[in-house]
Amino acid sequence: ELDQFCDDLNKTRPEYVKSFQYESRLMLSTWIVVRIDGCHFHRFSDVHEFEKPNDAQALNLMNACAVAVLEEFRDVVFAYGVSDEYSFVLKKDSQLYQRCASEIVSSVVSFFSSTYTMSWNEFFPQKEMKHLPYFDGRAVCYPSIEIIKDYLAWRQVDCHINNQYNTCFWLLVKSGKSKSDAQSYLKGTQTQEKNELLDRLTGIINYYNTLPPMFCLGSSVFWDKETKRVDNEEGATGKSRRIVVVGHCNIIETGFWEAHPQILDEKV
Amino acid sequence: ELDQFCDDLNKTRPEYVKSFQYESRLMLSTWIVVRIDGCHFHRFSDVHEFEKPNDAQALNLMNACAVAVLEEFRDVVFAYGVSDEYSFVLKKDSQLYQRCASEIVSSVVSFFSSTYTMSWNEFFPQKEMKHLPYFDGRAVCYPSIEIIKDYLAWRQVDCHINNQYNTCFWLLVKSGKSKSDAQSYLKGTQTQEKNELLDRLTGIINYYNTLPPMFCLGSSVFWDKETKRVDNEEGATGKSRRIVVVGHCNIIETGFWEAHPQILDEKV
Amino acid sequence: ELDQFCDDLNKTRPEYVKSFQYESRLMLSTWIVVRIDGCHFHRFSDVHEFEKPNDAQALNLMNACAVAVLEEFRDVVFAYGVSDEYSFVLKKDSQLYQRCASEIVSSVVSFFSSTYTMSWNEFFPQKEMKHLPYFDGRAVCYPSIEIIKDYLAWRQVDCHINNQYNTCFWLLVKSGKSKSDAQSYLKGTQTQEKNELLDRLTGIINYYNTLPPMFCLGSSVFWDKETKRVDNEEGATGKSRRIVVVGHCNIIETGFWEAHPQILDEKV
Amino acid sequence: ELDQFCDDLNKTRPEYVKSFQYESRLMLSTWIVVRIDGCHFHRFSDVHEFEKPNDAQALNLMNACAVAVLEEFRDVVFAYGVSDEYSFVLKKDSQLYQRCASEIVSSVVSFFSSTYTMSWNEFFPQKEMKHLPYFDGRAVCYPSIEIIKDYLAWRQVDCHINNQYNTCFWLLVKSGKSKSDAQSYLKGTQTQEKNELLDRLTGIINYYNTLPPMFCLGSSVFWDKETKRVDNEEGATGKSRRIVVVGHCNIIETGFWEAHPQILDEKV
Repeated sequence: ELDQFCDDLNKTRPEYVKSFQYESRLMLSTWIVVRIDGCHFHRFSDVHEFEKPNDAQALNLMNACAVAVLEEFRDVVFAYGVSDEYSFVLKKDSQLYQRCASEIVSSVVSFFSSTYTMSWNEFFPQKEMKHLPYFDGRAVCYPSIEIIKDYLAWRQVDCHINNQYNTCFWLLVKSGKSKSDAQSYLKGTQTQEKNELLDRLTGIINYYNTLPPMFCLGSSVFWDKETKRVDNEEGATGKSRRIVVVGHCNIIETGFWEAHPQILDEKV
Repeated sequence: ELDQFCDDLNKTRPEYVKSFQYESRLMLSTWIVVRIDGCHFHRFSDVHEFEKPNDAQALNLMNACAVAVLEEFRDVVFAYGVSDEYSFVLKKDSQLYQRCASEIVSSVVSFFSSTYTMSWNEFFPQKEMKHLPYFDGRAVCYPSIEIIKDYLAWRQVDCHINNQYNTCFWLLVKSGKSKSDAQSYLKGTQTQEKNELLDRLTGIINYYNTLPPMFCLGSSVFWDKETKRVDNEEGATGKSRRIVVVGHCNIIETGFWEAHPQILDEKV
Repeated sequence: ELDQFCDDLNKTRPEYVKSFQYESRLMLSTWIVVRIDGCHFHRFSDVHEFEKPNDAQALNLMNACAVAVLEEFRDVVFAYGVSDEYSFVLKKDSQLYQRCASEIVSSVVSFFSSTYTMSWNEFFPQKEMKHLPYFDGRAVCYPSIEIIKDYLAWRQVDCHINNQYNTCFWLLVKSGKSKSDAQSYLKGTQTQEKNELLDRLTGIINYYNTLPPMFCLGSSVFWDKETKRVDNEEGATGKSRRIVVVGHCNIIETGFWEAHPQILDEKV
Repeated sequence: ELDQFCDDLNKTRPEYVKSFQYESRLMLSTWIVVRIDGCHFHRFSDVHEFEKPNDAQALNLMNACAVAVLEEFRDVVFAYGVSDEYSFVLKKDSQLYQRCASEIVSSVVSFFSSTYTMSWNEFFPQKEMKHLPYFDGRAVCYPSIEIIKDYLAWRQVDCHINNQYNTCFWLLVKSGKSKSDAQSYLKGTQTQEKNELLDRLTGIINYYNTLPPMFCLGSSVFWDKETKRVDNEEGATGKSRRIVVVGHCNIIETGFWEAHPQILDEKV
C-alpha cells in the first residue's frame, strides 16, 4: 500500500514543482546587513516585567546572543544592537549560502532565537519565560564602506533619540503623570529641552550623561585582540588571541573606525 | 558630549541609507510555502544520539513545534514535516507582513527555533542540549491548488524514498557492513529490491509496511474539528471545537483533500 | 600590440564579472502582461499635430504595430491598446526567453518601436517624422483568468474615463475656453454631467454614443478565424484561416470572452 | 450603453489589479550597465547581405544609434559596442526612472531600435530594409569603478577573440573550405597560430594588425571636448564644446581611463 507512493511519483512533477523556487541572491562585492527585530516585544517585555526605559539584563542577554552569532557565523564582522534590534554586518565578499537572502537571514535569526531562549535562565534565573521570544529579519546590501558606516551611524542616532525620549517619558510617568500626559508634554521638544527636563526631574546636573553608555550608545560587537599578561620563569610576556568583545562606543565619529581598521578591512 | 550625536544627525543621511532597503513581496493571490531545514542537523543528531534511521522523539518534537507555529500564525493552513524539514503553507490571500518574503520566513523560522529549544526538555528529559538547534528557510509561491498539492506530494514522495533507503542502510550497518559498503550495496537498487532486502534482513514479510506511519508518510499538521461527547442532564451531546491535529496520512492521493476540503478552501 | 589583449585576458575576471548578472524570472504558470507606454508622447503628438482628443491615424498606426507584435511573438494571445499605451498578454505557460522579464519586455518594446518607425509613412504619408518615437515597458504577472480579465477591464474603464474627459475638454477649448478654464470647469463633474455637457456643446443628443468605438472602447487585438467564401466548380465553400484582427469591443462584460473562448484557453 | 462601463467600474478592482505590479529597482550608488543584443541578427545580416566577418556600414549604423542614445539619455556616460551588441553605462547616481530596471532597459532599447530603423537609409541608401531590426536588453549593476572597468574589458576581450576567429574563418571559407571544414580547422587553435594562419592566407605580415581598429577593438562612445580654432579680429582662439565622439581605443589598459578621467568621475 505504501509503495503505491512510488507509482504516484511519476504523476507528481518534481522538476516542475522545484522550478517555482526562486533564489534572491544579494549583489556580489557589497556589504550585507542582516537586521533583526523582536516580534511583539512590547508584550514580551511587559509580561517579563523588564525595567523601563532600559532593562540592563535584557540588553545583556541580547548582547550575549550577538556574541554567539559572531562566533558561529565567521563572515559577520560587526554587530550593533539597541533595544530588541540587532544589525549584523557581513564582510563584502562573503559567500555564505552563496549570498541567498532567505538562507542568510533565516539562519542568523534562527540561531539568535535559539540562543536567546537557551540563555534566558542564565540572565533571568528568577524569572520563568512565559512567552516565546521571536524575531523577524531582513537583509540590505551597501556598496561602499562609507555607506555601511552611515547605516550604523543612523542606527546609533536612532538609539540616542529614542533613549533620550524614553528616559524623559518614564521619569514623567514615575513622577505621577499619565502616559498620555507624558506623551503630550514631550511632543515637539528639542534635545536641549529634554536635557533640561531630565536635570529638573532628577535634580542631577547633566543627568543624561550619567546614564550607562550601553543605554545611550547601544552595543557594538566585534572581534578584537585580547592580550593576557603571562608571568613565567623568564618574566612577564603578553599572549594575545582574538575574541569577540562588546563595547559601547561612539561609532558615528571616525575615531572608532580608525582605532579598529580590521573590522571593515576590504582585503580580509 | 553624547549630545554631539544629534549634531551628527544631519551628517548622516537616514533617508538615503533607508532607501537601500528593498522589500521583496510575494505575488498576491498565490499560495506561499515556507520551508525550513535544520542547519548542521547531521552533527546535531549525532551529538544528541538520535536513533537511526528515525528518532520518534525527535520527530515528535519537530511536530510539536509545527503545531505551535499553526497556533501562532493563523494564516498557516497546513504543514508537512519529515526529518529535520518542515513546510508551512499560508493561505492564498494571506497579508502576513504585507507578504514581505524576509519577514514571513524569518519570523516563522525564529518562532520554530525558539519553540524547539524551549521544548527540548519535555521531549528529551534525560538529554542535555549540547548544541543549539537552528534552521534556514525560504518562501516559494504557487499559483494554484493543483500545484500546491503537487508540491506537498513531492515532499511526501521524497520522505518515502529517503526512508526506504535509510531503513535499508541502517539495517545493513547494524548487520555488520561498513557505511561505505552499505552505500555501494544499495546503489542503483529499485523499490522492489529494497523491499525484498528489508524482508530478508529482518525476516519479517512486508517489513516496510510494519514501520510506524510517521516514518513512512511524514507528518501532516492542520486545524480540524474535535468533537467531545458531553454527558449532561439532558443526555449526551457532541460539543466541537477547532484544534490543531497531527496526522500521518497519504496526502498524494485525492482522498485526503476530499476528506478535508476546508484546508485549501480558497474562499476562507 | 593588439594581441596584448589576450595577455590581459587573465587579468580580467570574466566569470566574476558575469556573476553580477541577475535574471529576474517571471513566475511560472501565470499570465504575463507586457504594458508599453509612449515616452514623451505629449511632445510627440504636439510636434506631429495629432488631432485632439483622438487622432484616428495615430491609433491605427499603434494598432498596426500591435498586430505585428502578435504575428512575431506567437505567445502573445491578446493585446489591448488605448492612446499611446498597449498591453500584451502572454499565455500562461509561455517559455519566451525562459520567462526572463528584461528580455521579454525589451524585445517586445523594441519590435513595436521599429515597426512604428518603419510604418510611419504608410499612415502619415504627408507628415515627416520629426522626433523619434520610443516606449518604455514593464511586465506584470497575474495568477488567474479572473484577474487577467480584471486587469483588461481596468484598462478599458480607464480608456472610457479619459476619453469622456478629453472629449469634453477639447470641445470646451474649441468653444473658446482657455485650457485652464476648461480644466476648472470639468473638475469634479460626474459621468452624467459630462454627457449632458457634450449634448449641450454639440447640440447632438447622446453625442458620446455617436463617437467611433475605437475612441470609446480602445482596440482589442487577437487571433481569430477568418472565413472566406470560395467559389469554385463544385459551388461555394467556406475556407477559414487564422488571422490577427483588431476589434473595438466591450471586454469588461463576459459576453466577449464567452464568444472567444480560445483567447484565454489555459489548455493551449 | 457605453456608460455602463462606469457602473462596471466598481466591479473591477483597480487598486487590487495595480498591486500586482512590482518595481524591480536597481541598487542605489552602483553603476548600471544596459546591454542590448540584436534579436535574430544572424538572419538579419544574411537577408541584408552584410559583409563577413565585419560590415563597416552596419557597425557605423550601430555607432550612430549609440551616439543618439548618449544625446537623449544624459545619464549614460559611456557606451561600448561590438557586432550587434552595445553596452551603455549609466552614472552611479543616476535617478533615471527612479532606477526601475524595466523602464530603463526598455526605453533605451526602444530608442535605439527606432533610431536604427530611421537611420537605415542613411547608411544603406541602396538597400531596402526587408526585416525589422529589434533588440533585447538587460541591466546589471556594478558596485565599483574597478568592476565596471573589468566589465568593459571583458567585452573588449570578447570582441578581439571573436574578431580573430571570424577573420580566420571567413578567409578559410573564401579560400574554398566549407564552413564545417573551416570550423574543424580552427578548433583549439591559439592566438599565435591564428595570427600565423592569417599571415599565410593573406601573404601579409602581421595581417591582423592591418585590420581597421573598429573591427579589432570595437567602438567606444562618450562625451568629449571638441576644440575649434576660431579666427577673429583679435587673432586665433580655441572655442570648446562637449560632443559625443566615437573612438576605437584599447579600454582594457589604464591609459584610456587616465586620459579621460571625466567619464567615470564619481563626483559628477
